[in-house]
Amino acid sequence: MSANTFGEIFRLTTFGESHGPAIGGIIDGMPAGIDIDLAFIQRQLDRRKPGQSDITSPRKESDTVEILSGVFEGKSTGTPIGFIIKNKDQQSGDYDHLKDVYRPGHADFTYEAKYGTRDHRGSGRASARETACRVVGGAFAQLLLKKANVQITGFVSAVHEIQVPENFQLNKSLIEQSMVRCPDPATSDKMIALIQEMKETGDSVGGVVSCICENVPAGWGEPVFDKLNAMLAHAMLSINAVKGFDVGDGFEATRKKGSEHNDALVNGEYTNHDGGIQGGISNGRPLIFKVGFKPVSTISKPQQTLNKSGEEITLEAKGRHDPCVVPRAVPIVESMAALVLADAMLLQQSKKI
Amino acid sequence: MSANTFGEIFRLTTFGESHGPAIGGIIDGMPAGIDIDLAFIQRQLDRRKPGQSDITSPRKESDTVEILSGVFEGKSTGTPIGFIIKNKDQQSGDYDHLKDVYRPGHADFTYEAKYGTRDHRGSGRASARETACRVVGGAFAQLLLKKANVQITGFVSAVHEIQVPENFQLNKSLIEQSMVRCPDPATSDKMIALIQEMKETGDSVGGVVSCICENVPAGWGEPVFDKLNAMLAHAMLSINAVKGFDVGDGFEATRKKGSEHNDALVNGEYTNHDGGIQGGISNGRPLIFKVGFKPVSTISKPQQTLNKSGEEITLEAKGRHDPCVVPRAVPIVESMAALVLADAMLLQQSKKI
Amino acid sequence: MSANTFGEIFRLTTFGESHGPAIGGIIDGMPAGIDIDLAFIQRQLDRRKPGQSDITSPRKESDTVEILSGVFEGKSTGTPIGFIIKNKDQQSGDYDHLKDVYRPGHADFTYEAKYGTRDHRGSGRASARETACRVVGGAFAQLLLKKANVQITGFVSAVHEIQVPENFQLNKSLIEQSMVRCPDPATSDKMIALIQEMKETGDSVGGVVSCICENVPAGWGEPVFDKLNAMLAHAMLSINAVKGFDVGDGFEATRKKGSEHNDALVNGEYTNHDGGIQGGISNGRPLIFKVGFKPVSTISKPQQTLNKSGEEITLEAKGRHDPCVVPRAVPIVESMAALVLADAMLLQQSKKI
Amino acid sequence: MSANTFGEIFRLTTFGESHGPAIGGIIDGMPAGIDIDLAFIQRQLDRRKPGQSDITSPRKESDTVEILSGVFEGKSTGTPIGFIIKNKDQQSGDYDHLKDVYRPGHADFTYEAKYGTRDHRGSGRASARETACRVVGGAFAQLLLKKANVQITGFVSAVHEIQVPENFQLNKSLIEQSMVRCPDPATSDKMIALIQEMKETGDSVGGVVSCICENVPAGWGEPVFDKLNAMLAHAMLSINAVKGFDVGDGFEATRKKGSEHNDALVNGEYTNHDGGIQGGISNGRPLIFKVGFKPVSTISKPQQTLNKSGEEITLEAKGRHDPCVVPRAVPIVESMAALVLADAMLLQQSKKI
Repeated sequence: MSANTFGEIFRLTTFGESHGPAIGGIIDGMPAGIDIDLAFIQRQLDRRKPGQSDITSPRKESDTVEILSGVFEGKSTGTPIGFIIKNKDQQSGDYDHLKDVYRPGHADFTYEAKYGTRDHRGSGRASARETACRVVGGAFAQLLLKKANVQITGFVSAVHEIQVPENFQLNKSLIEQSMVRCPDPATSDKMIALIQEMKETGDSVGGVVSCICENVPAGWGEPVFDKLNAMLAHAMLSINAVKGFDVGDGFEATRKKGSEHNDALVNGEYTNHDGGIQGGISNGRPLIFKVGFKPVSTISKPQQTLNKSGEEITLEAKGRHDPCVVPRAVPIVESMAALVLADAMLLQQSKKI
Repeated sequence: MSANTFGEIFRLTTFGESHGPAIGGIIDGMPAGIDIDLAFIQRQLDRRKPGQSDITSPRKESDTVEILSGVFEGKSTGTPIGFIIKNKDQQSGDYDHLKDVYRPGHADFTYEAKYGTRDHRGSGRASARETACRVVGGAFAQLLLKKANVQITGFVSAVHEIQVPENFQLNKSLIEQSMVRCPDPATSDKMIALIQEMKETGDSVGGVVSCICENVPAGWGEPVFDKLNAMLAHAMLSINAVKGFDVGDGFEATRKKGSEHNDALVNGEYTNHDGGIQGGISNGRPLIFKVGFKPVSTISKPQQTLNKSGEEITLEAKGRHDPCVVPRAVPIVESMAALVLADAMLLQQSKKI
Repeated sequence: MSANTFGEIFRLTTFGESHGPAIGGIIDGMPAGIDIDLAFIQRQLDRRKPGQSDITSPRKESDTVEILSGVFEGKSTGTPIGFIIKNKDQQSGDYDHLKDVYRPGHADFTYEAKYGTRDHRGSGRASARETACRVVGGAFAQLLLKKANVQITGFVSAVHEIQVPENFQLNKSLIEQSMVRCPDPATSDKMIALIQEMKETGDSVGGVVSCICENVPAGWGEPVFDKLNAMLAHAMLSINAVKGFDVGDGFEATRKKGSEHNDALVNGEYTNHDGGIQGGISNGRPLIFKVGFKPVSTISKPQQTLNKSGEEITLEAKGRHDPCVVPRAVPIVESMAALVLADAMLLQQSKKI
Repeated sequence: MSANTFGEIFRLTTFGESHGPAIGGIIDGMPAGIDIDLAFIQRQLDRRKPGQSDITSPRKESDTVEILSGVFEGKSTGTPIGFIIKNKDQQSGDYDHLKDVYRPGHADFTYEAKYGTRDHRGSGRASARETACRVVGGAFAQLLLKKANVQITGFVSAVHEIQVPENFQLNKSLIEQSMVRCPDPATSDKMIALIQEMKETGDSVGGVVSCICENVPAGWGEPVFDKLNAMLAHAMLSINAVKGFDVGDGFEATRKKGSEHNDALVNGEYTNHDGGIQGGISNGRPLIFKVGFKPVSTISKPQQTLNKSGEEITLEAKGRHDPCVVPRAVPIVESMAALVLADAMLLQQSKKI
């Protein structure tokens, strides 16, 4: 697949820069006859959009999706679904001072190395704004997955060193009640306080999004190169700022013995250390994985870097940004998981005739 | 790409079960005129093969690769390279008792759920034997990458809770001197002792393979869905038993502030917390990543599981297996990294005309 | 590749129905730094648009393309190029009487068989309106091919039984002077007269578009399944109403002897019966091929067909249509050829390192 | 897909040169549980192999296929099917005189232009020997298509100017009774006489293979770029020596009026001028298409051409070859059609949920 396309049968192709007239995409492979709940799609976008709370970037974008094709009388037709989201609150002038500078942690230098050129306004194609299109694609994927009753739930399990407690039990109804999307209220409060501190000091922090996919039937996923866990890892590491991926016990598993880790029957129930996948194929138990995000690269503190002429300079960034990306990343993680699972669902149709 | 193919331009397709006449594959997209060093390819296979040391599976396979096409007078011709590796030390009878059993941690149940059938001998297609073909493909990829002077080095950095020390400096020449491929002699000794203990007690342990890719030029990798880190994650999570992936500081980065993590100039040199990739594209600094392996699922201790009839049974596995997979996983990790980088190298040819 | 995507490295993905708000697409893989001549792109669209002359459909569409991304300061950036063309002159009411009817020669029945549903307005996705997006993609491809000095020229060589004379020599400057895009004035006049007769009698006719691609360097095209001729055939047969494809002497070659057909030296020059391709790879001589179009399926004469209830009915079509599609098909043929060649050009970058 | 892979879900990847140790391939995407009739597969290979009759190349190859994986207890397992065919009757010395010569009509020059090198023995990868692997892949595809009762029948309808009569009715049982695979005995006799004349004079002739695919259900094929006719055209033009493709009435349709060509009801039955496809999707009527082959390029008559040094030379070919390729091309055409249809069958599984 090409750089801007994700998926084999259910595939999303996206385009768009932060500061052009619009971003958008094409969803290809949606089966015909699926109910298209536009309100759900917009709701997912709203969970991702900037300016939604005190702890996110103040950039104001309504992020209204316009569906241009592929839906007729409220249902998918089987033809490709084109969509656009117009860019509105562009303050391109904010970026003039960055034209000749390579910002630390950003893709400025690497884009130039790759293409010999770059659109410096708002990070261009490297902007996290691109992920809005993934949320649209993922929302359509979730509408398809409803047919199989699959449910995908993401939440914030860590911000910096603040983590949900070890004996934590997920209560889904608490996720959206937390500004930071952490369903443990005490932990959520601490996270919010830390993020606000970062906002004030011009710094940023990283964090972890956990995700659980329920009711995935046994048998999804391809066994060799496109293992379900490999596709999820691919999907998650393709999200801006992601640096780590754990499935099931993840790196914890490296510190266990087989006799502790193997998912054997205990009191008549299989344990789930493997996170619902064995040999790359779902086993019917919940898929569980974690996604680690680095701290946002844009900070207001002075940093040393090079400019285009190779001179060392001190950069003090302006622009508008999030002090912590994980709250807004929750719907993005869910969307990428949905794209993987929708594709796996359709691929599985061809395995037994 | 399909389940059994990896890569876009430089692509490996593999076939074969543990207990058929042969496994093999096709490497497509190798440019013409590359020197083919058959001894190097075989050497990589030898680093992966079972029976190479006291701490690996006693299964004896010479794992001799036969090249059937695509090489003429010592050089690649640009046409596909077909190869086979004959299976030799098959003791299919060892697996008869597993025909109707779903082994904990294995892909027995999931293959049946997927295909409605499975070849139960030696895990069939789910056998780690399949990775021998990846090593052949990866060795060809490395021959191509030599043209760009790229060097890929894997080593074992952790077995269970035994890790290389924090101030550890990699000395490459020590890797192959260690039976466990850990270049820190003191740590290596402890690892070997632990693995031997596992062998005696019939248990197994997990571990971590670290990998560094040097001299990767800036500009490789696709910026959105096929970020270089996403492709590496995909590649690594496609290896049997892998449960976690870290690039750069990985999950450590989630516990840092932007002002600590950002790769800015310090004393005139950029730090490398991001592990050589920004915005999905290489930045010219070394690529660094870690791969977490769970403990081998095959253990000799009794375990509770279900059989095909849904009855709970106690399984005591026989067969031959490794108590710890990471020493043999080192060339596999290198090979998958090479496949990703060879593809990125060729894809980059088309970006600037 | 999926149904709505064409190409491997230079790839066009399209969306849109005849009667939605817009059609559009995404061009992925355009190298960075290419000059984007928007006037050329619009000119190609104008050559395809309905209502351009007396002998085309009276539907009025300005077919103005809006570029949404991937172009910055007049040059391509290497990122995907999103574009839309708004639908304007929609008279959906014209199609109400066709809701339950399967029109002869159209895709009405087959879409329903495939998807269980269809958007009946203006043929929905099966409308030839979809080809406008191919013209945009092809125009971008031609801007890339300019770098290699490749020139693609299509013209009408036959309408029904009226053909250009056997000793015909192509004078490119005459193509656009002919309403029917036949560069032989006497033949052009006869074609126009026949098409006008069809318009008056409510019938339609087929025809042939010939195409020549000059300056294609030797070495483009893949040697086995994706031979350059195979990709051209794929591209051409994907155009609505195409029923035949000839490369070089085409079916004429089947009636020749090897001693007559082989491209050997004659007076020091190679002949070109093979049309510039041998073994699927360009040989440096002009690529020559012909594309056969059936008569337009929409006619005003009464026809017998079935409706959804399986009853035989007499259909008298209304709607607006072309009596002969080949004049407007010329830029579409050129565009599809350009997509094939741009992809071949970029793929060839990776063959020799 | 890459040059050496065909298909999206049901995909064949091949390797191998005429004069290496073996050719072979991998069939990926075969659903599990399909009965594998090895005798049928070998029978198809036997219909393609050289030396099968007086009018084919005297090269002797048993062309015995060895299946290496993916089949267990007589059924497909869903895992990839690896196979090889050993090369036996290699007389590489026959080709020494061609090392520095570009044979007219052959791919000698174009391979060198593409790769900067070539394996000159027996045309290397450009040898029609490569098509044996297509026959294996196609035979597996036919075993899958049996599940849908699809029947694919190819036959020779023309050799040079000798064609089956216009009122010809296909009697399938006569095909294999004819050495030239023309089921009209009188025509067959004339064809054989002409081919024998060519053999004696050292010349060659072209011809046409017609193909009919029965019981293809309505709804197969993708509607835009991967129309069923486009995929068939791609498949057919990828066969060595093919120069033309007609679906339904093909180029004949260009000389008809819509009122004559449209598939309307006549006496309660739809006509089939479109050859079973409308809008790129099968309509349930038989798929009908024709494939035009140029005369074999290898002839014994002297020809003028260039050598590597650019000098004009007179070439008198030796080697062993067919004076007419179409009798042996029949199973190749059937195989490529089967690959297209098997893929369309599996792709269609995902269109309606």
